[in-house]
Amino acid sequence: MHVLVTGASGFIGSHLAHTLARRGHQVVGLDRRLVPAPLTRKIRGLVGEVTRERLKKIHRRPDWIFHCAGGGSVGFAETHPEEDFRMNVTTSMEVLAYARGLRPAPRVVFLSSAAVYGNSSGCGIPEGGPVRPCSSYGFHKLLAEETFQYYSRRWSIPVAIVRLFSVYGEGLKKQIFWDAFQKMSHGASLFSGSGRETRDFVHIDDVCQLLRLAPRVARSPASILNCGRGEAVRLQTALGILARHLRVSQPRFSGESRPGDPLHLVANARRAFRLGWKPGVDLEEGLRRYGAWASQGNRPKE
Amino acid sequence: MHVLVTGASGFIGSHLAHTLARRGHQVVGLDRRLVPAPLTRKIRGLVGEVTRERLKKIHRRPDWIFHCAGGGSVGFAETHPEEDFRMNVTTSMEVLAYARGLRPAPRVVFLSSAAVYGNSSGCGIPEGGPVRPCSSYGFHKLLAEETFQYYSRRWSIPVAIVRLFSVYGEGLKKQIFWDAFQKMSHGASLFSGSGRETRDFVHIDDVCQLLRLAPRVARSPASILNCGRGEAVRLQTALGILARHLRVSQPRFSGESRPGDPLHLVANARRAFRLGWKPGVDLEEGLRRYGAWASQGNRPKE
Repeated sequence: MHVLVTGASGFIGSHLAHTLARRGHQVVGLDRRLVPAPLTRKIRGLVGEVTRERLKKIHRRPDWIFHCAGGGSVGFAETHPEEDFRMNVTTSMEVLAYARGLRPAPRVVFLSSAAVYGNSSGCGIPEGGPVRPCSSYGFHKLLAEETFQYYSRRWSIPVAIVRLFSVYGEGLKKQIFWDAFQKMSHGASLFSGSGRETRDFVHIDDVCQLLRLAPRVARSPASILNCGRGEAVRLQTALGILARHLRVSQPRFSGESRPGDPLHLVANARRAFRLGWKPGVDLEEGLRRYGAWASQGNRPKE
Repeated sequence: MHVLVTGASGFIGSHLAHTLARRGHQVVGLDRRLVPAPLTRKIRGLVGEVTRERLKKIHRRPDWIFHCAGGGSVGFAETHPEEDFRMNVTTSMEVLAYARGLRPAPRVVFLSSAAVYGNSSGCGIPEGGPVRPCSSYGFHKLLAEETFQYYSRRWSIPVAIVRLFSVYGEGLKKQIFWDAFQKMSHGASLFSGSGRETRDFVHIDDVCQLLRLAPRVARSPASILNCGRGEAVRLQTALGILARHLRVSQPRFSGESRPGDPLHLVANARRAFRLGWKPGVDLEEGLRRYGAWASQGNRPKE
């Protein structure tokens, strides 16, 4: 297949581009900043913003489009909501504007987030669960989803929306495990929250396996797919595993929660499993790899 | 009050700016194209796109903001959805970005459309009625409303969303009455549809009266207000009145409806009436004025 990956230099986009290239697909990766290293071999790199003008310059009509570009930080979106809006919502409209001009229409996969569930979150959230984002990031992902939904129907573009739960893995220099690695490397072991909060951690390799299957369920109107293992893991447990791999002392918790952080955010991922998805990297193995990667050359400068 | 009106050279924006200026308010009118004639007297005109950078250049913090800028054509939005998205959704985010930086927060009135009701339309639609837009224009107005809703709550900005039904009046060179005037001036009298479709026509003077009251009900989270007289008028009746004023033959109807046009689109406007709104221009009087204005110097070139 000919595949376009936007945000191809990002954490998920670069892993996905490589996964697809390894499987024999012809990949064009677009990113506003091109990191040369990850875009090698069968991946053609394009530098630029996600605009329909830029996309129209791609010679070969893609069979699949993975829209991975977009804001990737809840915290950044809180302080720069207009920029996050542009990165998540406006770029989605641009991808759709490009896709509607192609015949036959490509299959489009949009990378959304479990943040759209927000305050409605709990354990075993199905795709039909209520969406009540409690962050600008989640709200913008929801607006982008609505845009994909509306124009998927209107222009008969097959779309699959994948709502990612807590993705982690080698290369990710933000979010809970990276922050914890930084702290632990400095000898700190006190974390906010009670430690009893639960998340549905899913390793980047497994995410790429599901994304690879997602074009099969691209529909008009769009289909929605949760990407989580469906396992509720306490933060205490997860950070405990990381600490063990890093050979540092076990984490302690202050009991004070950060406002806006849902207590539980765990998927009902039956649709993904029905697709034949078999996540193979459990948290023990995933954090062993993550700890090893983080420790090798990523130790923060004193 | 110090008032900012975006889209101040447009049909509604220019009428509103004059209404407010006549009432003694200090008005700054922003528009990407400045029509010098209507922006006189107490209205200061600014030329430019609706961006937060441009808005921040306004010296005096506005007490009220009327966001009238935005796509105003259902047909244009169908052929240029990306541009309509920018005009309706992106500019709304820009206005909010500007408003959130002001203390105390200004009262913001967003001009939305009955098109958000779309296929759920009927007679006597209340503000809480289901929203199912059936046009890109209506969908973009809905996305903009959601953006106002979310950030009104998030940033404690008082917002009133006004959903306009079928606005008409002197100066409007598009939509049903303008099209009919053009046709009738050429001796044509056959129109599409059955003529039994109903609309809730509201004259621009009455719209401005309601908009002037709207800041009073600006809330966080945003309040919603239908702007229609609540009277179902058959297109046959309305075009008949116009024909009479133009002294041309009465309209006939082909019976063929245009897809996407709702059969009935009539407001339940109790909230507006509760605010003390008293629409004073009935259709007979409004179309007399419109016909006179259209006939004076607006006869299409042969």
